[in-house]
Amino acid sequence: MAIPVDEILNVLDKILDKVGENTLVVDLGSTKSPICDLVSSNQNRSNFLAAHPIAGTEFSGPMSADSSLFDNKTIILCETEKTENRLLSSAKEFFLSIGMNIKEMKPDEHDKHIAYVSHLSHITSFMLGKTVMDKEKDEGTIYDMAGSGFESTVRLGKSSPSMWAPIFYQNKTNIIDALDEYLKNIKNFKYLIETDNLSEMSKEMKEINGIKNILKGIK
Amino acid sequence: MAIPVDEILNVLDKILDKVGENTLVVDLGSTKSPICDLVSSNQNRSNFLAAHPIAGTEFSGPMSADSSLFDNKTIILCETEKTENRLLSSAKEFFLSIGMNIKEMKPDEHDKHIAYVSHLSHITSFMLGKTVMDKEKDEGTIYDMAGSGFESTVRLGKSSPSMWAPIFYQNKTNIIDALDEYLKNIKNFKYLIETDNLSEMSKEMKEINGIKNILKGIK
Repeated sequence: MAIPVDEILNVLDKILDKVGENTLVVDLGSTKSPICDLVSSNQNRSNFLAAHPIAGTEFSGPMSADSSLFDNKTIILCETEKTENRLLSSAKEFFLSIGMNIKEMKPDEHDKHIAYVSHLSHITSFMLGKTVMDKEKDEGTIYDMAGSGFESTVRLGKSSPSMWAPIFYQNKTNIIDALDEYLKNIKNFKYLIETDNLSEMSKEMKEINGIKNILKGIK
Repeated sequence: MAIPVDEILNVLDKILDKVGENTLVVDLGSTKSPICDLVSSNQNRSNFLAAHPIAGTEFSGPMSADSSLFDNKTIILCETEKTENRLLSSAKEFFLSIGMNIKEMKPDEHDKHIAYVSHLSHITSFMLGKTVMDKEKDEGTIYDMAGSGFESTVRLGKSSPSMWAPIFYQNKTNIIDALDEYLKNIKNFKYLIETDNLSEMSKEMKEINGIKNILKGIK
């Protein structure tokens, strides 16, 4: 089920009710707790696998298909102990066969971490786009002055609202925590600029530069 | 002069004092007002051209050289009327010969717009990196859960602190304005999430999606 997470909640139970014993339903949504909670009491729970492939682009629809999208990407699986063993094995075999790496995680753990590592990036990117578009009414100025840096930072702001609004809604609590941390950091950095504290700014940026090594190898 | 903007202010006057009539000194800094102000009273002002190529990566040093860096990129020139005509023509010819597009702008206009279109992106990217690194002490979690979206949004957080701290310092007033707008937008979006206002979230994101068309063609 590769559909927006609100629609997953709408139809998953009905679909699960209808499957036979050899069918596995896999969801690929970006939130996991609400989905796992929903199906927990379904009589066919063992025919379901909660998954989240960490792969995608800002584009939607069939024209955005990319045959190498899953190469060496992580897929997170939740509550695998609740999925029937034979069906789980086939699914894992399939994910491995398209080049993915499998990680297992609890749904609430997934939702907490993904709020920081994925959902927050989308909001900061959308809001960067909004700030620049609101201020620079003259689109020519944005076009002339925007370098690859702006382009890359604002890229996720091209993402689909119908996909993302329900994610923000379903992972509200974790996302608000992440936004509070982010706001605190931005305000503190603004204060360093206001007070001409170049040494503290530099120190902070130098630490953040360490992300280079953490992300090494991510495409 | 392709050196950090604080160093440009330290050495530009001394260098300009020593040049002959056939020499043009061009700075490539990311701030323009402080630099133009500094040289305004130099006796060799006409041997100087203030420029800002909108091209670069998050990497520094000679190993980061890229022969196609300037292809079809914009270079912004300021106060060209103060540069000796013959020298200005040679410079423009050179920039065109390496594939750049020339735009002219007043220094204060440049600094105001670039605060939004470039400097703000760097701060939002650094702070995204900080928020995630502070929260996710386990680097393995970041590595496993970070997709290309996070990678792209945090990319500028790999930039050089010794290049960027002086830029934030010199363009302080404009950057604080941009940060205030950005903070306002983030807080408002957070409120939409808190109040489950999916329709307003979607509306806002849909408008921001328009950045697609504005950026079309930027590499």
